[in-house]
Amino acid sequence: MHRHHVSVVEGILDANDTIASSNRADFAAAAVTVVNLMSSPGAGKTTLLERLVPMLHGVALGVIEGDVQGSYDGDRIAALHVPVTQINTAAGFGGECHLDANMVRSALGGLPLEELDLLIVENVGNLVCPAEFRIGEHARAMVISITEGEDKPLKYPLMFHACDAIVINKLDLLAHLDFDLDLLRANIAAVNPQAEQFLVSARSGEGVAAWRDWLLTLLGC
Amino acid sequence: MHRHHVSVVEGILDANDTIASSNRADFAAAAVTVVNLMSSPGAGKTTLLERLVPMLHGVALGVIEGDVQGSYDGDRIAALHVPVTQINTAAGFGGECHLDANMVRSALGGLPLEELDLLIVENVGNLVCPAEFRIGEHARAMVISITEGEDKPLKYPLMFHACDAIVINKLDLLAHLDFDLDLLRANIAAVNPQAEQFLVSARSGEGVAAWRDWLLTLLGC
Repeated sequence: MHRHHVSVVEGILDANDTIASSNRADFAAAAVTVVNLMSSPGAGKTTLLERLVPMLHGVALGVIEGDVQGSYDGDRIAALHVPVTQINTAAGFGGECHLDANMVRSALGGLPLEELDLLIVENVGNLVCPAEFRIGEHARAMVISITEGEDKPLKYPLMFHACDAIVINKLDLLAHLDFDLDLLRANIAAVNPQAEQFLVSARSGEGVAAWRDWLLTLLGC
Repeated sequence: MHRHHVSVVEGILDANDTIASSNRADFAAAAVTVVNLMSSPGAGKTTLLERLVPMLHGVALGVIEGDVQGSYDGDRIAALHVPVTQINTAAGFGGECHLDANMVRSALGGLPLEELDLLIVENVGNLVCPAEFRIGEHARAMVISITEGEDKPLKYPLMFHACDAIVINKLDLLAHLDFDLDLLRANIAAVNPQAEQFLVSARSGEGVAAWRDWLLTLLGC
């Protein structure tokens, strides 16, 4: 009796991780550091980037903007003379609520990767699914606005757990809210004690320099 | 030569719509009106419900709470002596970023459906995917906080287009924001001219009675 030999492939990467690895290799070849920036809709990712741009003296920034549709954020960044590629998930990607490695890969050809030091990928506004898809990034950062409530790390733990830096935004509104900043910070620390926390107001610019310094450390500056 | 006859089934419902129809039949049998309530994380859905409860004189309310994990919102509603069933999408539903008809169906057994007049389903905080899944509801409402920015209807049009009522929340913060309320309202109207807009502060209770009256109209009151 003939028995077939079955070869077992273990530790196989899923398609997303395979493509993320290719992205990562391209980033290494171009010597560009890539940060995946995530948050709820309206937490202030784009405003934070607008504040960051004039603080990046000598560091060449590029941005990939992820939205379901439209280029509202991309237009704001392009107005600052930063190279931007817009991904619309509604255009050929099924209206997905997140970016994945393949979408990011499709956007890389539109950027002068070799000329960049830092590439920030502004993900679709969503506290759930973007955290599930690696895109080949070197680090992950998220923005949480204090108007969203202290409970968000406990309700969306995967996102808070997945990020290396957590930017607490809209501090300028603190006096006008019933908000316990210490409780938010403790809830973040409970879910992710390793994450660095930054207190900022993207509106006023307060605290953004400290986050900029964290980015520069990623670049080895 | 024998030719097989192929029968073509057209207009077939997908699994979600099939289950949503079953939910709808159960709601009809119990004479309960069901509203699917959606928003970004932290827009104020639960606070809005807390304000609504004491305004519902004589109307029997039940709530289904949808979260990835935890029962923080459910506990807040249960404290008001409202029957609540919590759905955690991380528990058996793959950590999904939205509720679907099957999840809602699994929660119905935990509620005294025959005793309710109104069932509000507080969906997972997300401006994208919840709008794609019918749950058998009679109407859809969403909350948009003015801290999220005027551009959200244009960036997340499916959600705004899918809703019958759009509750604009956190009006108490208007004086402290660089926010153009007329522009938000115009952007909503551009995406969904039929939607009724309500201006509220769930924090102060201002304007919530008008939304309550919209709910009562759904009930035929």
